[in-house]
Amino acid sequence: MSTTDPSAPRVAVIGGGQLARMMAQPAIALGVPLRLLAEAEGVSADQVIADSRVGDYRDLDDLRAVTEGCAVVTFDHEHVPTEHLRALAADGVVAHPGPEALVHAQDKIVMREAMSRLGAPQPRWAVVADTADVEAFGLPCVLKVSRGGYDGKGVWVVREIADAAEPLAVAERTGVRLLAEELVDFTRELSALVARAPSGQAAAYPVVATLQVDGVCREVVAPAPDLDPALAASAQELALRIAGELGVTGILAVELFEAPDPDVEGGTRVLVNELAMRPHNTGHWTQDGAVTSQFENHLRAALDLPLGSPEPRARWTVMVNILGGEDEAVGRLYDGYPHALARDPRLRVHLYGKALRPGRKVGHVNVYGDDLDDCLERARHAAAWFRGDLGNESE
Amino acid sequence: MSTTDPSAPRVAVIGGGQLARMMAQPAIALGVPLRLLAEAEGVSADQVIADSRVGDYRDLDDLRAVTEGCAVVTFDHEHVPTEHLRALAADGVVAHPGPEALVHAQDKIVMREAMSRLGAPQPRWAVVADTADVEAFGLPCVLKVSRGGYDGKGVWVVREIADAAEPLAVAERTGVRLLAEELVDFTRELSALVARAPSGQAAAYPVVATLQVDGVCREVVAPAPDLDPALAASAQELALRIAGELGVTGILAVELFEAPDPDVEGGTRVLVNELAMRPHNTGHWTQDGAVTSQFENHLRAALDLPLGSPEPRARWTVMVNILGGEDEAVGRLYDGYPHALARDPRLRVHLYGKALRPGRKVGHVNVYGDDLDDCLERARHAAAWFRGDLGNESE
Repeated sequence: MSTTDPSAPRVAVIGGGQLARMMAQPAIALGVPLRLLAEAEGVSADQVIADSRVGDYRDLDDLRAVTEGCAVVTFDHEHVPTEHLRALAADGVVAHPGPEALVHAQDKIVMREAMSRLGAPQPRWAVVADTADVEAFGLPCVLKVSRGGYDGKGVWVVREIADAAEPLAVAERTGVRLLAEELVDFTRELSALVARAPSGQAAAYPVVATLQVDGVCREVVAPAPDLDPALAASAQELALRIAGELGVTGILAVELFEAPDPDVEGGTRVLVNELAMRPHNTGHWTQDGAVTSQFENHLRAALDLPLGSPEPRARWTVMVNILGGEDEAVGRLYDGYPHALARDPRLRVHLYGKALRPGRKVGHVNVYGDDLDDCLERARHAAAWFRGDLGNESE
Repeated sequence: MSTTDPSAPRVAVIGGGQLARMMAQPAIALGVPLRLLAEAEGVSADQVIADSRVGDYRDLDDLRAVTEGCAVVTFDHEHVPTEHLRALAADGVVAHPGPEALVHAQDKIVMREAMSRLGAPQPRWAVVADTADVEAFGLPCVLKVSRGGYDGKGVWVVREIADAAEPLAVAERTGVRLLAEELVDFTRELSALVARAPSGQAAAYPVVATLQVDGVCREVVAPAPDLDPALAASAQELALRIAGELGVTGILAVELFEAPDPDVEGGTRVLVNELAMRPHNTGHWTQDGAVTSQFENHLRAALDLPLGSPEPRARWTVMVNILGGEDEAVGRLYDGYPHALARDPRLRVHLYGKALRPGRKVGHVNVYGDDLDDCLERARHAAAWFRGDLGNESE
C-alpha cells in the first residue's frame, strides 16, 4: 500500500444500491477511497467498490466497524436509525447528512412539521389515527406511512372512506404514524436539487420536470420545459432555504408539485411533496448533462470540499429509467447494447449490474442535445428497447 | 450473487496503473464487471476494482488464472509477452488488441517496418548494431531501444558519436535491438487517437496538440490549434488506416511530429513518431471533453460493441498532467483541493490514488470552454498548484 496517496480521506457509504455504485465513479476521479457497507454480497455497489463488507445498517456494531478509520460516513439510502447515527457521532464519526437533518427525509410527519415551521408551500396535511380523523380531514386525500415508504409503497389515495381501512390497518400493525395530505390536482411534478457543504456553500441545479408512474420516477427533463423563470428561481431558493434551515449536507432533492395558483389567474405555484437527502433519481441527468454530477457534489459536500458547478452542459438533457417489464424474459440488458448503441452513438447508458425483474430499476439512459423532441425520442426508444417493449426478434 | 445481471460479460485487464483505474469508471456505467491483474496490492487500479488479484503479467499461469471465465482480455500497458498472448489465444481467450497487432506497439523496429510497408510518412530510420552503423546513418540522430522504453526512457539524442556509447552498451547488455531515427526538426507534436472494434467499425477523435517535456506528456490541447483542416483530416485517415491494416482493436494512439513539408513552401506535414495500443495520455481530455471517453470506447471495442461518438463537447478542452515536483514534500494532492476547486468550480480533476514522487504522473486536470487562453490558464494553474509550484503557504 506504500504507493497509495496517503493524504486522501476514506468515505464510508452505507447501502449497496445503485446510488452508492454511481458514487464510485467520481470517487475514482477524486482519488478518494470508499468503504461500503453492503446488504449482501454481489449487490449493485458491492460489485464495483473494492473495500466492501457485508453487514446490517440497523446494527450499530456493523456501522462502527465499517466507519472505523473513515473521515466521514454517507448514505445510499435514508434508513439508518437516528439513534445509531447519534451513537456514531458520540464516537466522533461525522455523518453527512447528519441525524438531525436526515430525520426529515426519514419521517414524513417530521418533514411536514418542519415545512410548516419554515412557511414552505405544501399541501394541507394532518396526522390521522383512525377513520374519524380521516373523515374530519376530508376526502379525497392521500394517506402515507410516516416512515419506511419508498417508490410509491406506503402511499394510498383515499377517495371513499373504505379506502382508508388498509392504511389504518398497516399503521396499527407496524406502529408507524399515518399522515393525511390533500390530494393535489397538480399540473406536473418538478424537482429542485441542491448540494450543500458543511461550510454552508450550496449549489442549485436547474429545476427539472419529472414524470412519475405509480410512484416511480420514469423520465426527467432538464431543465423543466416552459417553466416560468421566476417560479424556477423561487423553487431553487426554496430548496436552498430548506437545505440551510434543516442543516442538510450532501444532496437534497425537493420533489415538488406544480399546481394552479389560486391567487394568480392562469399562474402556477409549487408545493413541497417529498424530501430526499442523497443523490436522487431526478438528478441522474447530471452525470452527462451537468458540469459536476450530483454524485460528485454529494461526495464533495460530505468531505466539505468546494462544490462543483451545477450548470447544465447542454440545452436539454433527458433521463429515462430502464425498468424491468412485466415479462422479465422479454427484457434484455447487455444484449440490448448492439442495437441501442449502434442506433445512437451519442446515447449514454448507465446500468446497475442488476438482473431484470418486473418493475425493478436496473439502469437509465441520458440523452442531451439542442432539440428536446429528438432527445425524448432517442432516450425513450433506448429505454423501451432494453425493457423489451420494442420487438424482441434480435435473437 | 443472484441479483447480478447475468448477461454481462467479464473483461480481464492486465496491469494496475491509472489507465486500468480509469477504465473502471465506464465499466461501472456499462454494467460490465472487470477483473484486474495487478502488479502489487494497493496500486492505482487495485484500489478501485473489486475483483482484483496480484500477479505477474510475465507469468502465463497468472495470465491464465486471471482470464478464466472472462470474455476478453485487454491491457493497461503493452508489456505482456507475445508468446503468452498466443498461448492464451490457443486456450480460446480473446485479447484486444491481439498479439499480431500489439507487437507493433511493443517493438519499435517492427513498427517502423510496418510503417514503411504501409507507406506511412515517418522519419528516416535504420536498425543499428555498432558505432559504424550509427556513423553510416548520420548524425545527429535519435537512438531508441526497440523494446521496453517508455516516457522518454530508452531514448537518446546522439549529436556526436560519443553519445552513442551508452545506448549501444544498453542494447548489448539487454540483448535488445537498437533503432536509429532521423532527429526531426518538428514544429510541434500531435496525436491522432482512434478506436477500432473487431467488427471493423472505427471512430476518430479530433487530432490534438501535445506538449512533451523530457519524453513525458505535459499538456494536451483538443483540437490542435491552427491545424490545417486538410492535414488534420489526413492525420485521422492515417490513424484509421494504420488501425485497420495492423488489425488494432481498442484504442490506437498515433503520436505524430508536425514538421515543415519540404515539398510545399510554408506547408507542414506529419510523420509517425510512436504507436500506443491502449488508452493514452493524449486522450485523457476525452473524459470531460468528448461525447464518449477513450476509456469507454476502449472497453466497447474490446467487447465488439458499437463505438460511441468521438465528437468534442466543447470548443476547446485542455488537459494538463499533475507530476510530482523535485521536492515531493512541497507538492500536495488531496490537500490541494480546497484552493483548486474553490478557484475554479468547472475544473475537472482526476487523481490516480498515487503518492507524490518526483516526476511521477499522479493525476491530471481537464478544463473545457470557448476561450483557449482561459482554459490553458485555469488548467496550468491547477496542475501547478497540486505540484506545489505556486507557493505552499496553505498549511
